[in-house]
Amino acid sequence: MSISTEIITIGDEILIGQTLDTNSAWLGERLNAYGYNVVQVSTIQDKPGHIVRSLDLAKQRADLIIMTGGLGPTKDDRTKKTLAEYFNSELVISNSVLTHIRKLLGSRKVSMNQLNKDQALIPEDCQILNNSEGTAPGMLFRDGKTTVVSLPGVPYEMKSICEKELFPWLRKNVETDAKFFRMVMTTGYPESILAAKLKNWEEHLPDNCSLAYLPSPGIVKLRLDIWGESEDVMETSLEKEINKLHKIIPKAIYSYAHEGIEEKIGEILKEMHRTVGTAESCTGGNIAKMLTSVPGSSAYYKGSVLAYAYETKRDLLGIDQDCLNKYGAVSEQVIRQMAEKARRLLNVDYAVATSGIAGPGGGTDTKPVGTVCVAVASKDQVIAKRFQFGSHRGRNIERSSVAALNILRKIILADLAKNQK
Amino acid sequence: MSISTEIITIGDEILIGQTLDTNSAWLGERLNAYGYNVVQVSTIQDKPGHIVRSLDLAKQRADLIIMTGGLGPTKDDRTKKTLAEYFNSELVISNSVLTHIRKLLGSRKVSMNQLNKDQALIPEDCQILNNSEGTAPGMLFRDGKTTVVSLPGVPYEMKSICEKELFPWLRKNVETDAKFFRMVMTTGYPESILAAKLKNWEEHLPDNCSLAYLPSPGIVKLRLDIWGESEDVMETSLEKEINKLHKIIPKAIYSYAHEGIEEKIGEILKEMHRTVGTAESCTGGNIAKMLTSVPGSSAYYKGSVLAYAYETKRDLLGIDQDCLNKYGAVSEQVIRQMAEKARRLLNVDYAVATSGIAGPGGGTDTKPVGTVCVAVASKDQVIAKRFQFGSHRGRNIERSSVAALNILRKIILADLAKNQK
Repeated sequence: MSISTEIITIGDEILIGQTLDTNSAWLGERLNAYGYNVVQVSTIQDKPGHIVRSLDLAKQRADLIIMTGGLGPTKDDRTKKTLAEYFNSELVISNSVLTHIRKLLGSRKVSMNQLNKDQALIPEDCQILNNSEGTAPGMLFRDGKTTVVSLPGVPYEMKSICEKELFPWLRKNVETDAKFFRMVMTTGYPESILAAKLKNWEEHLPDNCSLAYLPSPGIVKLRLDIWGESEDVMETSLEKEINKLHKIIPKAIYSYAHEGIEEKIGEILKEMHRTVGTAESCTGGNIAKMLTSVPGSSAYYKGSVLAYAYETKRDLLGIDQDCLNKYGAVSEQVIRQMAEKARRLLNVDYAVATSGIAGPGGGTDTKPVGTVCVAVASKDQVIAKRFQFGSHRGRNIERSSVAALNILRKIILADLAKNQK
Repeated sequence: MSISTEIITIGDEILIGQTLDTNSAWLGERLNAYGYNVVQVSTIQDKPGHIVRSLDLAKQRADLIIMTGGLGPTKDDRTKKTLAEYFNSELVISNSVLTHIRKLLGSRKVSMNQLNKDQALIPEDCQILNNSEGTAPGMLFRDGKTTVVSLPGVPYEMKSICEKELFPWLRKNVETDAKFFRMVMTTGYPESILAAKLKNWEEHLPDNCSLAYLPSPGIVKLRLDIWGESEDVMETSLEKEINKLHKIIPKAIYSYAHEGIEEKIGEILKEMHRTVGTAESCTGGNIAKMLTSVPGSSAYYKGSVLAYAYETKRDLLGIDQDCLNKYGAVSEQVIRQMAEKARRLLNVDYAVATSGIAGPGGGTDTKPVGTVCVAVASKDQVIAKRFQFGSHRGRNIERSSVAALNILRKIILADLAKNQK
């Protein structure tokens, strides 16, 4: 049986948009991968009445309820008391939690105050989920067929409790149905074009299989879900569909794993023992940030000359003054030079360069906001492209970054194929 | 009367954590600022039954219901049909929407397919909210005292409809109570230390006033809410409390506006007509990305030498080989040089440098993962600091970036004060 699961996030800061609810996204992804069927995420106010009503409703929809937030040293947290009352359980000092808090604060050279001491007060009927990263433990309650879990809202504490305590417990105690999914990561086509290309294939998918389009700037992820009894049968069935898909859009697919284009590029560069550097202007460090967000990226990423100002392009990167005057910083001529100069300066195999008008200011008649030039230089060639994106600064930066990395991906894949011949 | 508001987000991709729900955060922030009281965000499955049940429940909690997602050209969208049935309304072709779709696709040089044509089918009893950025319009239904709005899930389309169509309509047609809040942005203290410092002040806040702590890596935002009749009275009352707060933690507060430390720094640099550059290692471009995410940052941000590799530090930044050998790349000696060299190379007034072990690999006994050195160089001085952060790569990058920017903030504020004497 597939276990219906609801995530309840507590906190006014999320309702009024001052904190992004990354916890639910992380929990949803992990729970789904284990086969727990997340049917709803409810974000609610940090008020006893609202917490109680939400638990009552969630119990009608789900057998596993995971709450985050509302636990912490400061006064705006009321969850623990509410849960104790809801489950008719007395709050008592847990000596193991108290010892842990004292030890943790000691290692950080912080002295224990009353707020910290109160965190060792735990409802006596709950199972404690140890929090090795913080002072607020997780709590697990069983109520008939329902399991209710309360976790602190600080993301790295919540994640650590899940990995070390909750998930192992769930997999042992709350069995669920087999579900399976595969991701196919694409770049280069907008959603509606991709959908038209895939229409016929999608209409002939097996009945226990469904497709979802997940667009983000420059990328459309495809998720293929399947339900069934046996993992082997589901896997084979999905494999067959993905082979058909590959024949329709072979070049647009950059990965069959749920990963960013920067991760895929990292894998290929590592395999080839090649290095990369960047010379960013309009993307302002975003490509460097993407590439270096991957653990181990220091094996292939060497650095960047971030030439934001005109003078930096000239003095540090050595772009020709005449070329800058004649064509402007956002031009095919300059972007080719940026990539070539960066490749030599940084002493790398490949260099990625960007220059454009991200907006909202800086546009002209011939180069409106959203005009972006990108180039990639290798030992053998420089490929440059001009794009016309939209009016949104953040989106332009993201789309430019993905477009530049996609050119890099194609060049290194071609070089890899040459090497393997 | 304060209008209770619920946001309903439709989409399996959010439930299973493959898309982050940034729409609700944005909507929550904007609605709250206008005085609409967001009481719940419900993220639900893209299934007619679930949509209908969620609408029924939301109507018990809220008078204004805003749904996002489930509208778009691809097959996985069922919202529009469900809403038409829910409100007993026939789907009919809207000629104005059809004309708009044709025009929009034409400008993008994309030809219209059947999927796009179907987007012009609209429930006849709804009010159309024009979508100038995309093909799926917003729809507004009135049902007794309840207003239900359905918007597409693509963030920039949803935001554009809100700004141009929905918010002006709401402010004219759905009046709400006065609420007021102020943000105080702090850096330098962890949440529990800050809470202990503010305990006495917090306990003496007026009854119609409440405080929330919103921690993120390196930053704790404080939000002070107040409810009342007159905006003037509320504003004066909050002003008084904020003056008291300032006296308790004068140096930790970097802004009284809801903004990042990079935005505050930008304002000060603009005022001073000074420039800044960066020499990042472990933060991998994150500081550059933060600084350049601010529109208009090209007025003060000139560029960066992102020296990720050892050789890049030596060859491009010109760090002394002996110093690198003797002390290692993560050392106070090297970080001082990085900041000084970058200041000269980039020809800027201030340079920010970082070098550290972000993890998960690369740690040693004397320099474990999380060891980070940061420095800021100005004309007069170089300030360097060593930090010991935790084991999480992303968090270490964020905390290092904020710590480095906080040193920059203090130096430029001191320079500004000198100038003003």
